[in-house]
Amino acid sequence: MFHSVFHKDVPWVYLVTDRRACGGRSFFHQVEAALRGGVNLVQYREKAAGTRQMVEEARALRDLCRRYGALFVINDRLDVALAVNAPAVHLGQEDMPLAEARRILGPDVCIGISASSVEEAVAAEQAGADYIGASAVFTTPTKAEAPGIGLKGMAAICRAVSIPVVGIGGLHAGNAASVVAAGGRGVAVVSAIMGADDPEQAARELAGEVARAYAASKGC
Amino acid sequence: MFHSVFHKDVPWVYLVTDRRACGGRSFFHQVEAALRGGVNLVQYREKAAGTRQMVEEARALRDLCRRYGALFVINDRLDVALAVNAPAVHLGQEDMPLAEARRILGPDVCIGISASSVEEAVAAEQAGADYIGASAVFTTPTKAEAPGIGLKGMAAICRAVSIPVVGIGGLHAGNAASVVAAGGRGVAVVSAIMGADDPEQAARELAGEVARAYAASKGC
Ligand code: NI
Repeated sequence: MFHSVFHKDVPWVYLVTDRRACGGRSFFHQVEAALRGGVNLVQYREKAAGTRQMVEEARALRDLCRRYGALFVINDRLDVALAVNAPAVHLGQEDMPLAEARRILGPDVCIGISASSVEEAVAAEQAGADYIGASAVFTTPTKAEAPGIGLKGMAAICRAVSIPVVGIGGLHAGNAASVVAAGGRGVAVVSAIMGADDPEQAARELAGEVARAYAASKGC
Repeated sequence: MFHSVFHKDVPWVYLVTDRRACGGRSFFHQVEAALRGGVNLVQYREKAAGTRQMVEEARALRDLCRRYGALFVINDRLDVALAVNAPAVHLGQEDMPLAEARRILGPDVCIGISASSVEEAVAAEQAGADYIGASAVFTTPTKAEAPGIGLKGMAAICRAVSIPVVGIGGLHAGNAASVVAAGGRGVAVVSAIMGADDPEQAARELAGEVARAYAASKGC
């Protein structure tokens, strides 16, 4: 049930939370609307709150995801994941090393790893990652960081590993199909849904684009 | 060995790390000097670093504490504690709830709880805390927070629980004896050692004051 996105051959419509992107809107309202619209993975990403608040919010989101049959993922914080028995965690290259995390979480918790190169993605798969978050696919001009990996980088990572790869970074309904066409199992978004006035409709449009592109990639 | 401060009737000279208090000096150098000077508990408290960096630093501090027979404590982050097999954690009132933490860590990891009232201290003891960090004993004028509990509040907490109570907040060699005289098992300091030009000497003076006051409190 919790791992349905792995057990079934469905494309991933993956929401990463960001309370700052919600504007004046309620955080949980945005997430629940997104689930109604077709999001099937939700990653709780929170860097500023205290641990107790994180545990409370994560527990509420876990229950919400369970009701919608979506996979609930916690970013970075294994302590919060253990406290709420989260079925999945996502780790960046600066978070807990994968081997350490696997030892702590055991074999039944899904672990996703951020990768921005073929090397990082292959290393993660070999170390037992369950999926790859390829990032950033696109970067916005406001980000003075490294340039995005682009669709070319996305495609190279998808060719290099056999576990699911979800693209993240600058994605929305308008470019989601190209990411799936590059071999992605789906797309992850933050502001395209968290910041939407109508998050349910935004999720529905995104899910539709992803589903069409996924069916096309299967030759349907 | 790691729990020697519990197993033996010794007063606690407890260092809480703060890399910002080190000025230009090396973080690990300050801690090792403090251990040479008589610190017998070290709490790694880090709010800003990434998880991977925290795990690396915590592992180094754990090994350092092991060499000196000091108890190594991790503030807040159970994930980091699990990654390095830390023998103890310290939780504030806004961190993971104690019951959750005990379930995750099991019975063999020491758990300390911050308390600023008799009620909080008694609740922590009843829920299975191994020690209390009574805070803040004193506050500095620059802190626009709640006033400190003072020696009177410290004494009330010490009378109310039977587990060890260590005072923290505005403490140094000049006022440490009064905290032990109030019933404290010892004192915890941050800048009095982390910010000292000669941390070994600062720790030695503090340990001396604490030892004298502890012996006096025992009627020796
Ligand atoms: Ni022991």
